[in-house]
Amino acid sequence: MPFVRIDLFPGRTDEQKANTARAITEALVQHAGCTPQSVQIVFAEVKKSDWATAGVMASAPQPAE
Amino acid sequence: MPFVRIDLFPGRTDEQKANTARAITEALVQHAGCTPQSVQIVFAEVKKSDWATAGVMASAPQPAE
Amino acid sequence: MPFVRIDLFPGRTDEQKANTARAITEALVQHAGCTPQSVQIVFAEVKKSDWATAGVMASAPQPAE
Amino acid sequence: MPFVRIDLFPGRTDEQKANTARAITEALVQHAGCTPQSVQIVFAEVKKSDWATAGVMASAPQPAE
Amino acid sequence: MPFVRIDLFPGRTDEQKANTARAITEALVQHAGCTPQSVQIVFAEVKKSDWATAGVMASAPQPAE
Amino acid sequence: MPFVRIDLFPGRTDEQKANTARAITEALVQHAGCTPQSVQIVFAEVKKSDWATAGVMASAPQPAE
Repeated sequence: MPFVRIDLFPGRTDEQKANTARAITEALVQHAGCTPQSVQIVFAEVKKSDWATAGVMASAPQPAE
Repeated sequence: MPFVRIDLFPGRTDEQKANTARAITEALVQHAGCTPQSVQIVFAEVKKSDWATAGVMASAPQPAE
Repeated sequence: MPFVRIDLFPGRTDEQKANTARAITEALVQHAGCTPQSVQIVFAEVKKSDWATAGVMASAPQPAE
Repeated sequence: MPFVRIDLFPGRTDEQKANTARAITEALVQHAGCTPQSVQIVFAEVKKSDWATAGVMASAPQPAE
Repeated sequence: MPFVRIDLFPGRTDEQKANTARAITEALVQHAGCTPQSVQIVFAEVKKSDWATAGVMASAPQPAE
Repeated sequence: MPFVRIDLFPGRTDEQKANTARAITEALVQHAGCTPQSVQIVFAEVKKSDWATAGVMASAPQPAE
């Protein structure tokens, strides 16, 4: 433990994921008292056509904010 | 919040997913007091060869019910 | 299938959850072609002190929007 | 119930998954008092380039243990 | 890897969970080629009033089958 | 998006969780190109008697490493 799952849109490179995983591991070591060896992180890519916010798929034309 | 994850078999069209997400969002607004903007929904497709019920993969010939 | 997990803050009554589950089941039947019997829904309550948005716990004083 | 999700690296054959699902179902029946019909199991494959341990992606050259 | 999450109703003793975890680990070692050390299993208890099947909470009076 | 779930043992204070969430949000902004507002993080505490590694519950006496 801990086990971390990150749902996110596709589009990050392997290098971006590696850097993100390293920084999140450091955050858990520094702030939550975990050992580095105990930290597992999984990236789960979710297509925009599979993710809705406020009832609208992220792949749909978005209203101006 | 809330965050909703739906594991289901592949085969729904983008339009079916969009209609489903809209209706689930409305359900959470009407019955659970959520604001529409707070509702996030993710569809995660699971192949029949990755889903077992009663110890039998959904891709296997199913016994008559 | 499908299996639906809903992470949300505590505070809904059992009746609200029951009504929400019924409406979500209907949404999956009507829009995603599922049979009612196949729909499983789980509510997982997450305390505000365990949920962060934009790096701020939901239990913290929120900035004006 | 129960609902079981297994995150693992790709590489298992359909037959391996079927045998694994059958054995896990039996474990839940024998040791946790579940009925076979109630057990649902999902395999979710995660690429090595999406899984980090100790801050290092599983796709990276691993240090000697 | 693998990481296994089991959602189930409360009511199993610690000994039942321990025996279940041991048997599931053996299943993954024997049938999926995992090393014992790599297997992580988490039990997540879900109250009957938080789990719906076919739109009906498991805490509600169930129809005769 | 992204949505981050962290399964971990109980024992962190609210302040530790807040600091961890802030640092993980920064990691996702800096390394994965996310906006701060898009980052949601949930901590899910799992008791040691509900978490097994290598077939042994974390609440059991652990073998010397």
